[in-house]
Amino acid sequence: MPRGLLIVVSGPSGVGKNTVLNQLLAKKQDLFYSISATTRAPRNNEVDGVNYYFITKEEFIAGIENNRFLEWAEVYGQYYGTPRDKVEEKLNAGYHVVLDIDIQGAAKIRQNSPEAVLIFLLPPSIEELKQRLVGRRTENAETLKKRLAYVHEELAAAVNYDYFVVNDRVESACAKIEAIIIAEQCRRNRFDFTAFKRNFLL
Amino acid sequence: MPRGLLIVVSGPSGVGKNTVLNQLLAKKQDLFYSISATTRAPRNNEVDGVNYYFITKEEFIAGIENNRFLEWAEVYGQYYGTPRDKVEEKLNAGYHVVLDIDIQGAAKIRQNSPEAVLIFLLPPSIEELKQRLVGRRTENAETLKKRLAYVHEELAAAVNYDYFVVNDRVESACAKIEAIIIAEQCRRNRFDFTAFKRNFLL
Repeated sequence: MPRGLLIVVSGPSGVGKNTVLNQLLAKKQDLFYSISATTRAPRNNEVDGVNYYFITKEEFIAGIENNRFLEWAEVYGQYYGTPRDKVEEKLNAGYHVVLDIDIQGAAKIRQNSPEAVLIFLLPPSIEELKQRLVGRRTENAETLKKRLAYVHEELAAAVNYDYFVVNDRVESACAKIEAIIIAEQCRRNRFDFTAFKRNFLL
Repeated sequence: MPRGLLIVVSGPSGVGKNTVLNQLLAKKQDLFYSISATTRAPRNNEVDGVNYYFITKEEFIAGIENNRFLEWAEVYGQYYGTPRDKVEEKLNAGYHVVLDIDIQGAAKIRQNSPEAVLIFLLPPSIEELKQRLVGRRTENAETLKKRLAYVHEELAAAVNYDYFVVNDRVESACAKIEAIIIAEQCRRNRFDFTAFKRNFLL
């Protein structure tokens, strides 16, 4: 069983990342969604152990000190991190693991796991993104203002990603991500040349 | 209309490249198969203007002198080349152009068109490849011997390609190549950052 792909999916707030990821995960049984740990408060309908592991700041800092996060970042004064053990376990079992993390987390994954596949979801236009954010109504005015200000920073960081997927239609974005997963498994840098040379007596 | 992809598909004789490419071309209307020019004699059932443009050595050399080939190579004492004009015309019209060329031709495409996508088709095993070659019976004993000797050279050159696709089943190999085409269009190096920055007012 070859090791699975470590896949980062980022995108500005409001791009529709959750919808795309939910559809993808429902369709592909070989994908595993890495649940992040966070110190921020749950939003409406968010469930501990499903959307996030909601933990205290003290617990989070202890995790950092014990190297239990593949990456972690502080955003808007709250901590977010990817628990390392679960990701490693699933990758070794052949699952592709999806990290739903922001541009700071992605930059750390790029440093520490250069074999990771970094995908950035783009909105069809900046106007549509703003409309979606305003229409979401799950955030208070202050958070919304911060998020809008952060959008430009997020978009500027897109240049560090391997792939850009425009989320014009959910089905189309999912199909592109599925294609990226298949293609990446065929790429030269993932090819087992030792086994190849053995099989072909080179 | 974005420019199409220039796609090289190579693989050792007997890997089943023609079958894979025929199925792919039947399925995908946005693919254009670049017909090579060659000085070698037609095999059984090969038709001029369909399988190859069969031309004389004099015509080929005139083409080289007039820079009419995107790449050309001499293999087994015969010339093979990719007519440049047709490829450019189709790429500019948004078609993905498939070059069905050997490792020498691929190396030249890599040099001259670094944006090209190089795919190497692999057999499931070296034994199966030899069986297929021997079973093909379209070649005389001398050509067959040359081809078998060349297989190791071809396989060793695979390291220069971007993708490896094992042709275990034709449908599976086609699906992988289709995925590679979709994924490559999303890759960072093909992304139009100028348009992006204009659209997103960065």
